[in-house]
Amino acid sequence: MSDRPRLLRALSGETLDRPPVWFMRQAGRSLPEYHELRAKAGDFIAFCFNPEMAAEATLQPMRRFPMDAAVVFADILLLPGALGQKVWFEAGEGPRLGPLPEIAALKGEVEASTGRLAAVGETLSRVRAELEPERALIGFAGGPWTVATYMIEGRSSDRSAARTFAYQHPEKLDALLEVLVDATARYLIMQAKAGAQVLQIFESWAEQLAEDVFERIVVGPHAAIIEKVRAAGVTAPFIGFPRGAGALVEEYAKGVPAEGVGLDTQASAAIGRRLQAQGKTIQGALDNLLLRAGGPALDARVDQLLAQWGDGPYIFNLGHGVMPDTPIEHIARVVGRVTGTRVKVAA
Amino acid sequence: MSDRPRLLRALSGETLDRPPVWFMRQAGRSLPEYHELRAKAGDFIAFCFNPEMAAEATLQPMRRFPMDAAVVFADILLLPGALGQKVWFEAGEGPRLGPLPEIAALKGEVEASTGRLAAVGETLSRVRAELEPERALIGFAGGPWTVATYMIEGRSSDRSAARTFAYQHPEKLDALLEVLVDATARYLIMQAKAGAQVLQIFESWAEQLAEDVFERIVVGPHAAIIEKVRAAGVTAPFIGFPRGAGALVEEYAKGVPAEGVGLDTQASAAIGRRLQAQGKTIQGALDNLLLRAGGPALDARVDQLLAQWGDGPYIFNLGHGVMPDTPIEHIARVVGRVTGTRVKVAA
Repeated sequence: MSDRPRLLRALSGETLDRPPVWFMRQAGRSLPEYHELRAKAGDFIAFCFNPEMAAEATLQPMRRFPMDAAVVFADILLLPGALGQKVWFEAGEGPRLGPLPEIAALKGEVEASTGRLAAVGETLSRVRAELEPERALIGFAGGPWTVATYMIEGRSSDRSAARTFAYQHPEKLDALLEVLVDATARYLIMQAKAGAQVLQIFESWAEQLAEDVFERIVVGPHAAIIEKVRAAGVTAPFIGFPRGAGALVEEYAKGVPAEGVGLDTQASAAIGRRLQAQGKTIQGALDNLLLRAGGPALDARVDQLLAQWGDGPYIFNLGHGVMPDTPIEHIARVVGRVTGTRVKVAA
Repeated sequence: MSDRPRLLRALSGETLDRPPVWFMRQAGRSLPEYHELRAKAGDFIAFCFNPEMAAEATLQPMRRFPMDAAVVFADILLLPGALGQKVWFEAGEGPRLGPLPEIAALKGEVEASTGRLAAVGETLSRVRAELEPERALIGFAGGPWTVATYMIEGRSSDRSAARTFAYQHPEKLDALLEVLVDATARYLIMQAKAGAQVLQIFESWAEQLAEDVFERIVVGPHAAIIEKVRAAGVTAPFIGFPRGAGALVEEYAKGVPAEGVGLDTQASAAIGRRLQAQGKTIQGALDNLLLRAGGPALDARVDQLLAQWGDGPYIFNLGHGVMPDTPIEHIARVVGRVTGTRVKVAA
């Protein structure tokens, strides 16, 4: 067995004796040691910008579970903050953003924004230095449309104001997305240089978009980011995750040159297999509610996912992030089932 | 040109000189005359159970716009009420339901439930008597899973409690769905006998379900309802609308013997054409936010939908219901564009 991380081998298109496994949001909310750390950290954004603490949060699940990859502890809303929009987190409520700055003003901050995110690079370097060589390190950014929805609406919502904005101010939205594509590409290049071996784009709100709009505001920007990152000589593979894209995930895979495609909870087995046959590595799609619920249905679904996709390049993961109140025993059980090891849970 | 309603011809698989058009939630919230009626009606459920007023609400949009079909003014939550669960509407907040009764208790009310919904039949008869013969009348019910989410959660929500229930109490959910299938089939048979020429099943919350769960709790129950209605000798065509089903809409179309399949806002043009090629009539999928937003993007999207699907059996509609604050001018403009007539808007 080579030291080359299993996740990278899967993203090169290899079918392995077992798929690599990691969970979106594995760093954080479900672990008691995370809550201890969080209590010390104070403000959430300050926490993300503290490399020592963020590296610790990144590594905590790696100590508990035999995950094949660590994902840097950070937040997709660090980027709008670095571009000059006010961003903060209301305890128990989620993110809040100040008014959307003028596009020209945001554009003027793109070059400087990457430097303002240097702490994330520092976190990556620290984690890479501590992590075993066979475990991969994942950097990430939000998809431009998802980040734009927060920038436009100022908070979590049903995105109907942002989706209406996409119809009423198409030129303004396109200009905003262009700024975000540029800043995101620079951010990901920096992350790769700092030690990220895989880059994931989280498009959390790809849902409910009409096909023509999806092509314009999701597929185009993702393709542009990857082209920019490749043009800078970065070879780290990409995983694009258009959560909620439904059937449009096939168009996404056609239009976006990412090595991996994330599938959400609703993933169709047949579409996953078609993507594999087209040379994509697929990732997903265990229901995070089922992970939390546990029981025989959880074991059965894990086995079903392994059976339906395991004979092609596949990364075992959830279809959405780990829920805060997920029992650690359930995470251990699933990771053990995928890796074929018995994972003990410390108190 | 025959008097046979255009909607029925489309559902027989005919490609017409132009598709029939109607809008989900066309009766109601967007019309000023509706709000006048609503103010007089008092309680929302009492309004639905008042055949004179409900018939008036059903007919209001038919007077304003050359819609090819009227859809009975009613609510999917009348059914759990008829089965003995308490249901009421909080002004400005939406539905509230009392505790979920025991399944055995609900089962004991199935036979009686249809009689308790007789007012909906009376509304249908009144509307059918007033409506021009070339315009069709649509009856409907909620999909069993969607109705179950409200019965379990007691209100509108993100359905995560109901989706967790589906994992933790599969036998109990299956038993609840069986009761709902039986009661829904009886309700739809009654509606057809009272004058409904088309029957639509609104599965508003088909989203975010894992494929195996979707098959079990959406596809199976819809197929069972249609079989029961057909077994009673009712020949009215069905439109099944699994909103949010994404790529799984193809499995839905394979497993559910409905003549028509509703596609939501995110519909893929290619999937729509595949369904048409398989003999399904498709319906949808204009974004209700775009209808509200208006402007050149609205005209362009209407033309695109007509171009991509108009040469197969197609019913023009939204991908979701009309939003309350949609300008009437926008509705008139779209209906005019589809029907090739200029629709005047009265003040």
